[in-house]
Amino acid sequence: MPREDVLAAARKSPLFSRLKPRALDAVLRRGALSRHEGGESIFMSGDPADRFYLVVRGRVKIFKLSSGGAQQILHGFGPGETFGEAAMWEGGRFPACAEALEPTQLLAVSRAVLREAFGRDPELAIGMLAGLSRRLRELVGLVEELSLKDVPARLAGALLDEAEKAGGSAFCMKRTKAELAAAIGTIPETLSRALRKLKRAGWIEVRGPRIAVFRPDELRRLSGRD
Amino acid sequence: MPREDVLAAARKSPLFSRLKPRALDAVLRRGALSRHEGGESIFMSGDPADRFYLVVRGRVKIFKLSSGGAQQILHGFGPGETFGEAAMWEGGRFPACAEALEPTQLLAVSRAVLREAFGRDPELAIGMLAGLSRRLRELVGLVEELSLKDVPARLAGALLDEAEKAGGSAFCMKRTKAELAAAIGTIPETLSRALRKLKRAGWIEVRGPRIAVFRPDELRRLSGRD
Repeated sequence: MPREDVLAAARKSPLFSRLKPRALDAVLRRGALSRHEGGESIFMSGDPADRFYLVVRGRVKIFKLSSGGAQQILHGFGPGETFGEAAMWEGGRFPACAEALEPTQLLAVSRAVLREAFGRDPELAIGMLAGLSRRLRELVGLVEELSLKDVPARLAGALLDEAEKAGGSAFCMKRTKAELAAAIGTIPETLSRALRKLKRAGWIEVRGPRIAVFRPDELRRLSGRD
Repeated sequence: MPREDVLAAARKSPLFSRLKPRALDAVLRRGALSRHEGGESIFMSGDPADRFYLVVRGRVKIFKLSSGGAQQILHGFGPGETFGEAAMWEGGRFPACAEALEPTQLLAVSRAVLREAFGRDPELAIGMLAGLSRRLRELVGLVEELSLKDVPARLAGALLDEAEKAGGSAFCMKRTKAELAAAIGTIPETLSRALRKLKRAGWIEVRGPRIAVFRPDELRRLSGRD
């Protein structure tokens, strides 16, 4: 059985939160616990990313060093948070340094352990994918909430621009949904929601890549160009 | 070799984008291609979530039906987007209905195929985890960007409230970072950035859970309470 504080930290983290007790137990037992004093280095930029870390206690900072030696802090991580996994999945090297900010306990889980454990129990991989998928859904919801106010306005402006370029009120959208979403600073999910909003209002019609603007006056007002 | 349009759609999707060519090929070849007319049902709410879908061509809407039979559209998905995977990883049932909006081609990949493929080639699971991790990192960045303007202001207000409750200028934070982040409508990563901003300005000091407020006047101004 892993220690109670390791289990409690793991259950907070998206990667571990959806694992069944047996799978969670199997992966935590094969992790390596370590203790670090404040100021102690955990890894350096350029080290092989052959493991990732779960913070059990304490705090860790992730930073880059400028050529002049100045630290640019990128992130801080506390109990229940993991770091290093993005670089580890890619199988590359850590792109930044990690250092303990105070007395800290970490559990390191290696790529080799995970690889072997996935082969033995594919449900472990499925559980980790479930945790990340759930977290992604939460973040998509948060982005929608944060950007919903502005996206329809920016979309209205972009549609007016396209209609003007096409020299009429109907045009064929040449950009993909992902490209258009990026251009107005959002994600495809939120763009779709904004398009539906304009359609429901009866201001535009969308058929595949073809968009017809029925109410340029309303789009102009919404975009703040009036 | 999977068809070129299936490959092109898969490469756009986070789940497939980080797979090595051989792993991508292996999973796509074991998917089931299907064609649907506009208006055709793909799955109903309550159906077993034993597969997920990649949109190759066309468009799909995800909706729920109210007790009165009204459709509440939750999402639309186009080429290169996947749907159904969150429910599939959890091994439950689809929580909503899916229907083609126009002539649509889909690739369905079953949980059983993935489970078996992960066991045979753990790198396939690692590649999918890499894709989701990368997408998570992008979304965390987007949330930070979207909420960075407001979070320090809301944090300043929350810190003033805590200091007032504690009856002084220094207090011990009883909420975890995740709880405080949720309370001010952001995520722990953005909260950390806002805390650093206030620390760098010299307005607060943070030592573990202990926070000292040096400049309540500045926090009050930032929070918009003046």
